[in-house]
Amino acid sequence: MIDLEDTRQIVGARNVIDATTLRDRPQDFWINTPTQALGLVKPADTVELSAILALCHEHGQAVIFEGGRTNLVGATQSNSETLLISLERLNHIGAPDRKGMTIEVGAGAIVEAVQQRCAAEGLRFGLDFGARGSAMIGGALATNAGGFQALRYGVARDQVLGLECVLADGTVLSHLTPYTKDNTGYDLKHLFIGSEGTLGVITRAVLRLHPAPRSVNTALLAFESFDAVAETLGLMRRDLHGTLSSFEIMWAEFFHSNVDALLGGRSPIEGRYPYYILCESEGFDPEEDAALFERVVSQALETGLIADAVIATSSRQRSELWKIREDFEAEMLLFKTMVDFDVSLPVASMEAFVNEVQRRLDEEVPDNLGLHVLGHLGDGNLHVTTGVPTPQGKGKVRALVYALIAGYGGSISAEHGIGVAKRDYLHYSRTPAELATMRLLKGALDPKGILNPGKVI
Amino acid sequence: MIDLEDTRQIVGARNVIDATTLRDRPQDFWINTPTQALGLVKPADTVELSAILALCHEHGQAVIFEGGRTNLVGATQSNSETLLISLERLNHIGAPDRKGMTIEVGAGAIVEAVQQRCAAEGLRFGLDFGARGSAMIGGALATNAGGFQALRYGVARDQVLGLECVLADGTVLSHLTPYTKDNTGYDLKHLFIGSEGTLGVITRAVLRLHPAPRSVNTALLAFESFDAVAETLGLMRRDLHGTLSSFEIMWAEFFHSNVDALLGGRSPIEGRYPYYILCESEGFDPEEDAALFERVVSQALETGLIADAVIATSSRQRSELWKIREDFEAEMLLFKTMVDFDVSLPVASMEAFVNEVQRRLDEEVPDNLGLHVLGHLGDGNLHVTTGVPTPQGKGKVRALVYALIAGYGGSISAEHGIGVAKRDYLHYSRTPAELATMRLLKGALDPKGILNPGKVI
Ligand SMILES: Cc1cc2nc3c(=O)[nH]c(=O)nc-3n(C[C@H](O)[C@H](O)[C@H](O)COP(=O)(O)OP(=O)(O)OC[C@H]3O[C@@H](n4cnc5c(N)ncnc54)[C@H](O)[C@@H]3O)c2cc1C
Ligand SMILES: Cc1cc2nc3c(=O)[nH]c(=O)nc-3n(C[C@H](O)[C@H](O)[C@H](O)COP(=O)(O)OP(=O)(O)OC[C@H]3O[C@@H](n4cnc5c(N)ncnc54)[C@H](O)[C@@H]3O)c2cc1C
Repeated sequence: MIDLEDTRQIVGARNVIDATTLRDRPQDFWINTPTQALGLVKPADTVELSAILALCHEHGQAVIFEGGRTNLVGATQSNSETLLISLERLNHIGAPDRKGMTIEVGAGAIVEAVQQRCAAEGLRFGLDFGARGSAMIGGALATNAGGFQALRYGVARDQVLGLECVLADGTVLSHLTPYTKDNTGYDLKHLFIGSEGTLGVITRAVLRLHPAPRSVNTALLAFESFDAVAETLGLMRRDLHGTLSSFEIMWAEFFHSNVDALLGGRSPIEGRYPYYILCESEGFDPEEDAALFERVVSQALETGLIADAVIATSSRQRSELWKIREDFEAEMLLFKTMVDFDVSLPVASMEAFVNEVQRRLDEEVPDNLGLHVLGHLGDGNLHVTTGVPTPQGKGKVRALVYALIAGYGGSISAEHGIGVAKRDYLHYSRTPAELATMRLLKGALDPKGILNPGKVI
Repeated sequence: MIDLEDTRQIVGARNVIDATTLRDRPQDFWINTPTQALGLVKPADTVELSAILALCHEHGQAVIFEGGRTNLVGATQSNSETLLISLERLNHIGAPDRKGMTIEVGAGAIVEAVQQRCAAEGLRFGLDFGARGSAMIGGALATNAGGFQALRYGVARDQVLGLECVLADGTVLSHLTPYTKDNTGYDLKHLFIGSEGTLGVITRAVLRLHPAPRSVNTALLAFESFDAVAETLGLMRRDLHGTLSSFEIMWAEFFHSNVDALLGGRSPIEGRYPYYILCESEGFDPEEDAALFERVVSQALETGLIADAVIATSSRQRSELWKIREDFEAEMLLFKTMVDFDVSLPVASMEAFVNEVQRRLDEEVPDNLGLHVLGHLGDGNLHVTTGVPTPQGKGKVRALVYALIAGYGGSISAEHGIGVAKRDYLHYSRTPAELATMRLLKGALDPKGILNPGKVI
């Protein structure tokens, strides 16, 4: 273990927090127990961060990088022997380059602040998720976050043009290229993106931007069959001229649970259907886009592909529709001990997968408290949640569902990553050869294993 | 060295070509000298390929993978001690999944065959370049090819959802996931994409598809200043509602050289301007798209942003405009010994960069035969070509231009990769720390250095 005093020499005394003070702080956004750590240091820039890492590397000191600590998989969980390194002071946000449609930001920049800086120039940063006000760019890249805009702009990885990282031993890898085409040897940045701080620390990034849309159209659609849902996705991708930005599916049980809780049971669409879709298009011509959106929805209604539909006519109505998709309070009350899954599947397997989960749960976990399924259909991403009366029941549900996911060729973590929460299940999605290759790369880049030990692999 | 006989046991005698027979074949698409190699084997599938590699690994046998051998950097250049492994028999093309908008293909599938298979289902494979009829998917991914559609769909890397590879020792890494979101540990596929067969061999891929556009609109634009060009790019990205698919820049010297050669000097646009743009939009509504395209071009003409313009009114006229951009016969005649560069630069630096290349060439290489600059402006990618009277002059031009590119923070290889042709210049774009990290990864994944030795790093 290093002496905290040595870190004070590098970052200054007021940028080091000691173990005692840290105990007043919860672990992270989700876990309320006190933070246990050797201390926390806040370097001002890449140079200071590199010096801290060189020191830790020399002494075999375990470190964990902290962004906004909003991740869902315990990825910043520490113990009394770990040194925490916060990126919060590397929060510089450059001026957006309107010609190149890029922006350079520090890893500590808050996602929402970057969104706003871009919006002020008529540009869109293509990443958005619930934790936008706390999550940092470095954390978003380290977890390769997904979120609401992935159908249109891709995941966090897809926003990155250039990246600066620091390796375990303090080596700075700087490749802050602001262009899309660059075939100069191995693409190192993709190794660090999504590796949850286990291969190196991200210090800066050049991000790709898009023109900010000027129109939004939203509808809630009801379907009699999953096939009709899948066909409508294809049709909208094509006929909405590339403006489709969300295509969120809700199975009936979740939808009606929220309609009951939020709207006293008065659904925006009469009756009960097995599948609901909240879909949205964002375009550049308010008048034409609205007409096109209405035309495409009407036609699909006429041909019977969509069973029923309501198009939002005000921003108030739009928010109401989104609330049905985004509000989880009723679910949390209902499911006492929640067991939730964030999975990817081929669209063609989704219906069979969900039906089998339902059947197996009813057979093998008869005291389950229901099954909520929703997700970003356009990305092949479902969130599956159930509840059991007591925490003891969790393990059985996990084993059951993860095995089913593996059987359908699915991913056990679509968006949220692995951290500690899913480490023991990683083998359901990756082969022994892949896991061995990951360990090989970890060993090559972090031979002393000081970076976020025990996470991911 | 292995005994070729042992490879016959694995792939069958008729799938092994011996050294003597190989001498009848040119090295590759560009280099006409006879192929020198120990032999060439053609495995039928991943299993056979894995067995071949296990054998080679055991004996420290150097190997080179062959796709269509169309790369521009000598990346498949061999000598009499190398074993060539062709992917041509892994040419399976699966049925496109229209719901999921994906397709699974073998590494030996010809790019054009994949395009056609998708087009038959109303889908677009987002990769296209001149060598489409010979290049294979595996080669396109191994070089991370760019091409004509990158502005709209990204480069080869961006088309890949899942990948199957084989490591140097025969280990098969299979992760053929057909969805966009997958955060299950390190993203291994990006290491192999763009690594030119030096880290492993790509055997199969699941590719992302797009709805096939139904309209195309093309215009040639003339500009008085580079600033106006850059502003028009931003404006078109926004105002063409995301349908902009090409934005190709030509500096006057190249443009008029081709107008003279191809059209007897009768330019589609009267007069002489410093910059020309060939731009194209592809959309989904032929009538509306044409009207919008015309409106956007007219408005930019009225405000004086564009100096002059001609919109193609027939497919014949469209081909004529593209010919000015794509025909290099005149250039090849003019430039005797060609020295060409494929670079990326921040759009904001391009004008200054080209001016400086011109000035320095005129000062330091006064016998240069001219300077042609064109490229995919929307991708930050320029092709810069000059000629010198004799091959002896090449080195000086290269040293001069590469140093300038480095000075402007550019990439010395935007699309074409490194191979042997640019290996000695790689340090102009990547730092010593980055190069050391690449070597570290190479050593970890291919400890005996049997994969495409001497290429890239
Ligand atoms: C309300 C809410 C909604 C959410 N919605 C979504 C969603 O829709 N989609 C989604 O994908 N996620 C979602 N998340 C999860 C979370 O917001 C993301 O994982 C986010 O990207 C984490 O960013 P952070 O800055 O909080 O990272 P942290 O939680 O601080 O860190 C996450 C991991 O990255 C590492 N790390 C942090 N910074 C760096 C760095 N600079 N370099 C290297 N490693 C680093 C940490 O060590 C840790 O392993 C949600 C979270 C909340 C609280
Ligand atoms: C007329 C013409 C136009 C071109 N235009 C463009 C363009 O616009 N943009 C662009 O980017 N390129 C362009 N190129 C270059 C070339 O077409 C691309 O680099 C192409 O992707 C190479 O594919 P290939 O199958 O011919 O690969 P090859 O040339 O056979 O191999 C290229 C490299 O990849 C390795 N490799 C091949 N297959 C595999 C595999 N399965 N697994 C691992 N490694 C493998 C080889 O060992 C070699 O290092 C052009 C070439 C020509 C001839």
